[in-house]
Formats: sequence, structure tokens, C-alpha cells
Amino acid sequence: MNNPIITLLTDFGTKDHYVASMKGVILRINPQCTLIDITHHVSPQDIREGAFLLASASPYFPKGTIHVSVVDPGVGGPREPILVKTTNYFFIGPDNGLLTLAAQKDGIKHIVVLTNKKYFPPEVSATFHGRDIFAPVAGYLSLGVNPKVFGEKTHYLVELDSGQPEFKRDQLIGEIIHIDNFGNLVSNIDQKAFSRFTKNRTFLIKAGKRIIKGLKRGYWEAKDGELIAILDSSGFLEIAVREGSAQKVLKVKRGDPIIVTVISGQ
Amino acid sequence: MNNPIITLLTDFGTKDHYVASMKGVILRINPQCTLIDITHHVSPQDIREGAFLLASASPYFPKGTIHVSVVDPGVGGPREPILVKTTNYFFIGPDNGLLTLAAQKDGIKHIVVLTNKKYFPPEVSATFHGRDIFAPVAGYLSLGVNPKVFGEKTHYLVELDSGQPEFKRDQLIGEIIHIDNFGNLVSNIDQKAFSRFTKNRTFLIKAGKRIIKGLKRGYWEAKDGELIAILDSSGFLEIAVREGSAQKVLKVKRGDPIIVTVISGQ
Amino acid sequence: MNNPIITLLTDFGTKDHYVASMKGVILRINPQCTLIDITHHVSPQDIREGAFLLASASPYFPKGTIHVSVVDPGVGGPREPILVKTTNYFFIGPDNGLLTLAAQKDGIKHIVVLTNKKYFPPEVSATFHGRDIFAPVAGYLSLGVNPKVFGEKTHYLVELDSGQPEFKRDQLIGEIIHIDNFGNLVSNIDQKAFSRFTKNRTFLIKAGKRIIKGLKRGYWEAKDGELIAILDSSGFLEIAVREGSAQKVLKVKRGDPIIVTVISGQ
Repeated sequence: MNNPIITLLTDFGTKDHYVASMKGVILRINPQCTLIDITHHVSPQDIREGAFLLASASPYFPKGTIHVSVVDPGVGGPREPILVKTTNYFFIGPDNGLLTLAAQKDGIKHIVVLTNKKYFPPEVSATFHGRDIFAPVAGYLSLGVNPKVFGEKTHYLVELDSGQPEFKRDQLIGEIIHIDNFGNLVSNIDQKAFSRFTKNRTFLIKAGKRIIKGLKRGYWEAKDGELIAILDSSGFLEIAVREGSAQKVLKVKRGDPIIVTVISGQ
Repeated sequence: MNNPIITLLTDFGTKDHYVASMKGVILRINPQCTLIDITHHVSPQDIREGAFLLASASPYFPKGTIHVSVVDPGVGGPREPILVKTTNYFFIGPDNGLLTLAAQKDGIKHIVVLTNKKYFPPEVSATFHGRDIFAPVAGYLSLGVNPKVFGEKTHYLVELDSGQPEFKRDQLIGEIIHIDNFGNLVSNIDQKAFSRFTKNRTFLIKAGKRIIKGLKRGYWEAKDGELIAILDSSGFLEIAVREGSAQKVLKVKRGDPIIVTVISGQ
Repeated sequence: MNNPIITLLTDFGTKDHYVASMKGVILRINPQCTLIDITHHVSPQDIREGAFLLASASPYFPKGTIHVSVVDPGVGGPREPILVKTTNYFFIGPDNGLLTLAAQKDGIKHIVVLTNKKYFPPEVSATFHGRDIFAPVAGYLSLGVNPKVFGEKTHYLVELDSGQPEFKRDQLIGEIIHIDNFGNLVSNIDQKAFSRFTKNRTFLIKAGKRIIKGLKRGYWEAKDGELIAILDSSGFLEIAVREGSAQKVLKVKRGDPIIVTVISGQ
């Protein structure tokens, strides 16, 4: 049988001992796990960014993968620790919207609130459920423990303030949901919304104080330093600069608008 | 049999080829190892910070784990390369205090100075014992080679200038030993020292120029932006800001004092 | 049989979902792989730096290791995706010079252009061949698929503008090709070139505005804060500051000259 795969996504950074502590806890329960980092550099306590990254990376993993995610400003408070079984995966983390986007995308089967203390250490820290609840549950789950034994079923997930783009008569108003390592600006306008809005009409895209006309198919179609719009590898409308950083050129930040305006019908 | 687990902690960063070279050397000796990074972002040549992180993360790993640690400003000089067998683990690295805290915490069984050149490459670099001594010893140890064959026994480890907190009549004077990714300030005052000093008396905690009254049980008990003190997930007194950075609010640095003052007896 | 080892080197950083997507794709094809990061912090689109790091780390891995590298400013354009079989390894990535140094060092056996769409997903993104071409080819290769089935043979690799040092009568003129995490300045002058030039003559080394006399054998021979030259653990002439950063002291950058001048013959 294949080794079970467990991914980790957190806002812990990689300087501290937090991520390694979680990995140690998992390996103590199941030393045969394959542990894969999605990222530990979610902006501190930024649930929306974590949700976007989890929903972007998780679908590429094999069926049966256990995705553990911790961006958890309300740790130790009233928010519930949960396990979500979806069509292909298990998602474990706080019920604060972090898992919702990825879980809905894959198709939710059932949700369990993690309450069974049998699977936790004798003392659960009030500030580090990643180590004391999510990691051990992932470890036992990877050993084949039935998801139902970790706690009671529930039927609702906390919704993420999801930031869908807004359709107006001549404009599609989206926003920057992620700025990547290259300074590319990823918007919340996906291929479907984009096509539905533009149809075959001519359009302009406004980002920062600049106007871009039309789409390129890839970076190679642009000249060095040229500001362009493309549909990126995840299917989102992206603003980029060939061999440069759109973020530096436009001086924008996450949450700033990306506006598509139709200038001629057919 | 389970795959042996080898952890790595260094101050090499993750931009260079150094960490990957060590992993390659280990895998060439034993391709079945599971390699886990504790961190590679110890502040360059900061032995005390490395020792703190190693002692914090190592206890969560399974019995038999081999912990390789390299923060090694004296590499190639008179400091000895060592292997420490403790109750549950093996610690490999330079004898400069880096391993001492973690090894003493787990209980030292015996110490070996790594001198047997049979297990090193023909030419040992004077600047990279991580790749040429510590990695191959970890690889062979993971194959079941007896620790004793790597060199001669010794009985003392270099002590770390450990920075224990100071007990005065009305004050317990500690210092900041680590600032984490969230800007939380971890002090060297642990739960035991703290309870022994405060008993059930009322106290104030001074950090930077601010005074904090009492402890919270977790971040969720605070309002957003509130400066609080808690006992953290490793059992140390920690200064934090709910959904913010105590380091930015207080403008303090590692080594700065954290002072607990008793203001009423019972 | 041992698990196949696949390494990854990119300029993607570790904040985004890109690296994890590649790992997911590989594990979906072959869940038994051992995945090792060389680095994901190559300066964005800096092919020469990537080539240096790949050539420095790759030789330490076991025979049969599959090295996947992606620094790919021309992704989706005319540059070819390739697989290079060398004496000990497989190198997969864009044919833009990135693989050339490492492949030549190990001895090129044959080169295949990756054109067989049978091994790609139905839609290949124009901006992310790492996920849609290089990762799946690595996955299938690790399952034992014959390199020849991925496409047609070719005989030439794009050459890297390799920056060999220049030999003059009294001077050997090199340049800084890498600045590491400690601020050490690695030059393109290797041990062989250095010995051939200096023979047993006395020499001075100029870096930034400072002159260094002679070589040390290691950092420990220097005083704290002293600026020194050594032959580093990869065999290159390196400028360093004991317990400090040569980069900060000299205020130099990658590409700046390192000049060895002979001041007396024999």
C-alpha cells in the first residue's frame, strides 16, 4: 500500500519550531506518512489568502490526501476544530472559512467537529491546536481511523467572505486576491466569469492607474517590461510584467480593484 | 521496519545549495531516510537561538529520531564534532553548546567525538562539516551503525551560556530569547519558575516600556490589538498582541528584559 | 527497491501554491517518490544563478536521482522543454542554459525534447510548464518509463553565458557569481584556475575597494570581523568575513569583479 500523504499549510513561517513540532507529532503517530508543505508563508492570520492558496494547490494531490491547514487567529476560542471529508480529500483545520473554498470546490461529503479527546494529548494548549488537535487527528486518520470517531457530525461550514467579482452593465469589477513571488497580480475574476462578461466584445482592463488592452496568451507574447493581462495557470485573470514585477510597476496591494470595461459591442 | 527519521536544523537559509548538499549526502548513504527540516533560518551563527529552537522542536519526534544541527561559527577550528545519545534521540553537530539544552532535557546517555575518518569523504572541507562529517555520520547511524565506532567517548558537553532568569526579592528578571513569526516575544521564564515566584500573589509584567497586568489563558481572551501575557504552547512566559505583533508595538529585540514584579503578598 | 528521488529547484518562492502543485502532480503519478527541495529562492528569472545552484547541489545526490529545475522566463515561447540523461542523473527543465552547467559536469549521454503529449494533461498552460510538462515527465520517468518515449532526440543544449574568469599576464579577473546566506562572496574562480595562475607566487586579491593578502584555510584562522579569502567547500575562491557579512562590509553585488594580482615571481 502507498504511504499516506499529508499536506501542511500555515501562517507559521519556517523560522520557528511550530511546523516541525506538528510534523514530529504526526510522525510519532504514523512514521510512514509522506509530509508535503503547501506553504507556511500565508500572511499572518490572513484567512482569505490561506483559503485561496489551499484551494489552488489541493486539487493537484492524489485521492486520499489529508490536507491540514492552520491560519487560526481565534485559536482556543469558540471557533470549532473540524474535519471535512470531500469527494477526494480530507481537510482538517479551524472552522473559520479557511477550508471552505477548497472543500466546496471538491464537493463536501460530511463534516465532523473534532471533540473526541481520546485522540488529543492529555493537555491541549489554548494557543496551538495545530500541534495538539489537527496534527494528531491527521496522524490517526492516516492510520485508517474512521473520521466519525473524532467527533459529531455537523452540516455547515463557516462561509468565507468570498469576494466574488461584481457584474455591472459595462463593467466587471474584481479585486486582487493574491500577489505572487514574481509580482504577478492574481484577480478573483476567473475564466468563466470573464468569458461570460466579455463575450466577443472589445475590452480594456484597468489595474492601478494603467489601462491594458486585450489579453496575451502567455508572457512570451510580451516585450520585456511590458504590462499585460493573461488568464493564468489556475484560470484567473492575472496582470503581469514580462521579466518584471507588476506589483512594483503599479504600486498596488491585495484588495485593490481590477476592472474590465467593455468598449464596443457586436 | 519504519524508515529512519533525520531532522535538520541550520543557519544556512534555503536560498543556497548547502542544505540540499547535506540531504544528498545522507540519501546517497541511506535512500530510505525520511528527512524533516526543523528550520534553516536560525539567525546566522546564533548558537543560543539554534539551541532554543532545537530544544523546542526535538521532543515531539518519535523515539530513535536522529537530529542533525549545524550552527557552527568555529567550523574547522578546535571545537569537536560530536554525537550525543540521549534517552530517546541522537543529536549530531558541533560541540559549541548548540546541542546541550536539547540533549540535557532528554537525558544524556553517552557522548562520542566524531573522529573515525572511515565514515567521512576522502577530503573533509574546513568550512562545511555539515556536509562532510555530520551528514555522513547521520546517514550511517540511520543504517544501524553503532554510535561507538564513530570515535571516542567523552563525558562533557560545552555548556551554553543558558540565560536562566534571575530571582530577586520582588522581581523575577528574564529576557526575550526568541521572537516568532507573529512577533510574539518568548521569554526564558518557564511555567515552573513563574509559578514558584508568583505563587498566588498579584503581579505586573514589564516588557519594553509597557506594563501588563496578569495572564490571559489564550489570545482569544484579548481584544484585537491588546497587549497581553500568556504561558505559551511550550510553557514559556510570552508577550503577545492579539492579531498584531508585540515586537512592532514594543520595539524590542532578543536579549531585552522581561520583568515580573510582585505587587501584593497574601 | 529504493524509492526514486526527485529534486526540485525553481524561482517560485515558497509563499505561492506553485511548488506544491508540482509536488501534487508528481505524487499523483508516483506516490512513492521522495521529493527533495534544492531551493525555490533563485532570484526571479535569473538563469545563471539557478544553473550555479543546480551544478553545486546535484552531484551530491544518489545515482538515478531526477533533478527537475524551472527558471523559465521564456515559458510557452519557442524554447524547448528537455530531458537530459547524464552519467548519473536525469535533468528535466527548459532548454535555456539552466541545466547545461550541471549536465556537462556530470557528462551528457543523450537529450530528449519533450513533445509526447501522451504524458501531459489535456490542456497545457502556456505559463506553467513546471506543473504541466516537467512534473508529469518526472513522475512517469520515476516509474521507469523509458526517456526516449517522451520525444525526439536532439544533440545540442543552449549554452549558458558561462562567465569563465579571464587570464591576463599579471591578473586573473573573475566575478562574483553567488552571494550566500552569510554574505560570503563566491567567485567563478575555481581551485584549478586559481592554482594554475598563482603557482607558488605571492598574490593580492581585490574585492570591492579592499585588498586581501593570501588565503586562509578556513574561517577559524581569522579574527572576528576580519576580511579573508578562502577556497570554499565547492572549490571556488570565496571572500568572507569571520562572524560577519562580506557583502555588507564591501557593499558589492553579483557580477562585481574579484581580481587576483601576482606581485612577485619565483
